[in-house]
Amino acid sequence: MDKKITSFSSNEGKPIRCKAAICKKAGEALVIEEIQVDPPQAYEVRVKILCTSLCHTDVTYWKMDSGPRARFPRILGHEAVGMVESMGENVDGFKQGDIVLPVFHPHCEECEVCKSSKTKSNWCAKFADDFLSNTRRYGMASRFKDSSGQDIHHLIFVSSFSEYTVIDIAHLVKISHDIPVDKASLLSCGVSTGIGAAWKVADVEAGSTVAIFGLGAVGLAVAEGARLRGAARIIGVDLNPDKFEQGKIFGFTDFVNPTLCGEKKISEVIKEMTGGGVDYSFECVGLASLMNEAFMSTRKGSGKTVVLGMEKHGAPISLGSFDLIAGRDICGCLFGGLKSKLDIPILVDHYLKKELNLDSFITHELKFDEINKAFDLLEKGKSLRCTIWMDK
Amino acid sequence: MDKKITSFSSNEGKPIRCKAAICKKAGEALVIEEIQVDPPQAYEVRVKILCTSLCHTDVTYWKMDSGPRARFPRILGHEAVGMVESMGENVDGFKQGDIVLPVFHPHCEECEVCKSSKTKSNWCAKFADDFLSNTRRYGMASRFKDSSGQDIHHLIFVSSFSEYTVIDIAHLVKISHDIPVDKASLLSCGVSTGIGAAWKVADVEAGSTVAIFGLGAVGLAVAEGARLRGAARIIGVDLNPDKFEQGKIFGFTDFVNPTLCGEKKISEVIKEMTGGGVDYSFECVGLASLMNEAFMSTRKGSGKTVVLGMEKHGAPISLGSFDLIAGRDICGCLFGGLKSKLDIPILVDHYLKKELNLDSFITHELKFDEINKAFDLLEKGKSLRCTIWMDK
Ligand SMILES: [Zn+2]
Ligand SMILES: [Zn+2]
Ligand SMILES: [Zn+2]
Ligand SMILES: [Zn+2]
Repeated sequence: MDKKITSFSSNEGKPIRCKAAICKKAGEALVIEEIQVDPPQAYEVRVKILCTSLCHTDVTYWKMDSGPRARFPRILGHEAVGMVESMGENVDGFKQGDIVLPVFHPHCEECEVCKSSKTKSNWCAKFADDFLSNTRRYGMASRFKDSSGQDIHHLIFVSSFSEYTVIDIAHLVKISHDIPVDKASLLSCGVSTGIGAAWKVADVEAGSTVAIFGLGAVGLAVAEGARLRGAARIIGVDLNPDKFEQGKIFGFTDFVNPTLCGEKKISEVIKEMTGGGVDYSFECVGLASLMNEAFMSTRKGSGKTVVLGMEKHGAPISLGSFDLIAGRDICGCLFGGLKSKLDIPILVDHYLKKELNLDSFITHELKFDEINKAFDLLEKGKSLRCTIWMDK
Repeated sequence: MDKKITSFSSNEGKPIRCKAAICKKAGEALVIEEIQVDPPQAYEVRVKILCTSLCHTDVTYWKMDSGPRARFPRILGHEAVGMVESMGENVDGFKQGDIVLPVFHPHCEECEVCKSSKTKSNWCAKFADDFLSNTRRYGMASRFKDSSGQDIHHLIFVSSFSEYTVIDIAHLVKISHDIPVDKASLLSCGVSTGIGAAWKVADVEAGSTVAIFGLGAVGLAVAEGARLRGAARIIGVDLNPDKFEQGKIFGFTDFVNPTLCGEKKISEVIKEMTGGGVDYSFECVGLASLMNEAFMSTRKGSGKTVVLGMEKHGAPISLGSFDLIAGRDICGCLFGGLKSKLDIPILVDHYLKKELNLDSFITHELKFDEINKAFDLLEKGKSLRCTIWMDK
């Protein structure tokens, strides 16, 4: 470890040349090329990525071919673990060699929302509204250049598909050295999002009934969160029947395959299964019609729906006004309502105490130069999470 | 009092002939006629109404000219205070002479929802789904007959525009003799609904910001609830500028008149006033478009909207999916989420301790035979609540 830190130090303040997987055009295979990573500016840290994984949001941005968020060439990737290589000015609380988790959602620790431990909100008043910039405090400035000296775009303040990246401290969490980095990487986005939604947003209690729509890593993490809270019944909804066997590990007790519901709506099937509806439902797909089904699956008087999936087409959600006034509740959240610097270390602790099952989320491992295979595995529903090792 | 009870007793088990205000056709003036009120059956109590008031829901049913809920002749009225005259079988916890409050929303005390003091739900598992019956356990059976012996329909299990009415014990709350009956009557529907929404559903805390859409009695009661919780800012939204002066008594600090917003949406004006939106918004009108404005008036990350108004046209509510996922929450409730038998005595206590302002809700008083004037006053926005005295 000391040796690595020494080798880091030699580059402090200078650009680093390293390998990165570049997305040159929407939907095209990534190309691994040598790039230049500039030194971090004030409030920034240059991080050596140790491992990364592919999340559905990367796939969404990979395919995005229009609108202000579609920008190429770009370095994708936002679920990762790294090690601090060097720091810009005004960086407190980090030192070279620290193990760090990048998080796409900001936690500035300075605004009234981030400072307050009382408020449930994780909507950083300083930064959370800006999704478009490359670098958090510097707008469209980029820290990446290709071989011809042209800027390469960042992805949601992380860009982990590179041996080195530059991350604002509002997007970086220091974690324990004790947790294996491939397990920790899961807490960087998907798994934390699911557990946060179950614990902080819904606040699932022992004995309750739960329905989860969409059994990717986020949906399974919701189940893991509900299982740890002692939910009596956890119903999974997915078109892919392979998800059902996999789901049992995370506490699913029942499964609904929408294609086998016949004339009935999913919500009708779930209401019949539970005598009126579940206490909590979670939408982890991002389809307005499914958000409505999730809502209608909850019981009158107290049912709560949590929307985690970003609607794929930006469509509005339609709710029956009487279905709402009958005591139902629906809310949404980003990053599971978690404040990253406060909550991720707690999740790491739960893993180290052998309570939280992270291991089962990792279904595949690849070398960095095999990264395009990860897209295939995720898109075909074959993988939950695929660890991509940067140094292998 | 003893004398009255004695006189009651003489009618026990027999029909009573008395005066009632009958609505013979949608939108027509009520006609006061002599009717027959049958003795209460098992689980029912015959109640001598002492005073009643007019709520917007009465007006809605009064005007309703089609659909299964439109039924005539009918005895309207559901906000009232009465005295127990006689009881059917299986009636525990009530005795002749008790002061009682009828409540349109059931609290059976037998189902798992009603028995649990833990659950937030007030959606009685046994009864809350049935809005159509005349009598709670006897379907379309009526306890009222007109002079020709024909049945008269009940209204939402109360029908208080009659000197005597028959009410199921699931809809009846015994209250203290210490509170003046005209003040207590307010707790039978509108004021309890508003305070319940602020206290139990939203759980407004000290220092928070609140926006209330629609400043009828329910909206003002939400403000009164928020004021008692120590809300820092309470913004009222209403088309009627007269409501603004009235509202100050109940804690309103700011007012928005939608007709003076120009090109801006109400939600944009409220966001500007509050630096991003309020912590809590309440929709007390019943218009889907206003529910959306209430939702958009709340701040990202933690804003919560409570819908109290039954949508006038049954229209669905449309919510921007990204507006939801940015950490907003919306829910609805009936009767402010209150369990009547548990929560109304608590509100009575708050009045008796001189904390809760009920007096200011009563703007008018009328004799029973002037009841049609109450409709005029409410429809023209001149009254908040008009006490109708049965024996004057
Ligand atoms: Zn992600
Ligand atoms: Zn912040
Ligand atoms: Zn009412
Ligand atoms: Zn009940």
